[in-house]
Amino acid sequence: MEQIPVLKLGDFLLVSIQVELHDELVLNLQDDLTSRIEKTRARGVLIDISALEIVDSFIGRTLGHIAAMARVLDATTVLVGMRPAVAITLVELGMSLKGIRTALDVDKGMALLRRALDASDGTGESS
Amino acid sequence: MEQIPVLKLGDFLLVSIQVELHDELVLNLQDDLTSRIEKTRARGVLIDISALEIVDSFIGRTLGHIAAMARVLDATTVLVGMRPAVAITLVELGMSLKGIRTALDVDKGMALLRRALDASDGTGESS
Repeated sequence: MEQIPVLKLGDFLLVSIQVELHDELVLNLQDDLTSRIEKTRARGVLIDISALEIVDSFIGRTLGHIAAMARVLDATTVLVGMRPAVAITLVELGMSLKGIRTALDVDKGMALLRRALDASDGTGESS
Repeated sequence: MEQIPVLKLGDFLLVSIQVELHDELVLNLQDDLTSRIEKTRARGVLIDISALEIVDSFIGRTLGHIAAMARVLDATTVLVGMRPAVAITLVELGMSLKGIRTALDVDKGMALLRRALDASDGTGESS
């Protein structure tokens, strides 16, 4: 079974997508990632899509689902590295990825996750 | 041109190899990684090969070259996620990857890089 590796980096999980996603693959990723969040007790998920040239509406929607699932498992998801052409297509498809935070690259996404984690730990409540 | 993405993570570069390497691809990686080390002034390189089922002698040797090149550019390379079968094959091929540090997973590799960086900074030189 084709699979996208999920790397553990401290409190976070990093998913670097390097092949064009098809429907089955992104559903596998959804299952895999949620079970990894549970197993590793990760607090954040970073999904790098800089290698993706195409994100269709199914994949966009599934990424939204992944973020929503991560949220109920108490992990924040940040999508990074989106190409301008992908952003254009997504908005033209009517998808604004409302539930997902985004950042320009892995570095900035990691900083965003750290800030989100500090903020939620500071108030004593999870986001 | 097929390419393996190189992600910047703070002071480090992360290379997560997810496709089986062929000779041209690993040579591209070598060029790409050395130029990224120069551009980003990275101090460490983490190469994750957990998805690789086969590492032949050419690839093993080239990984050694990459680590040596990174070293002269003042970056430490750590190879992580090697499968037991790959370790067996490499040693049977007579390659013990002497010049490369290894760690079991990305988390441990990152910790090793941080320690190496702290140790070298401890001598009075800043990065």
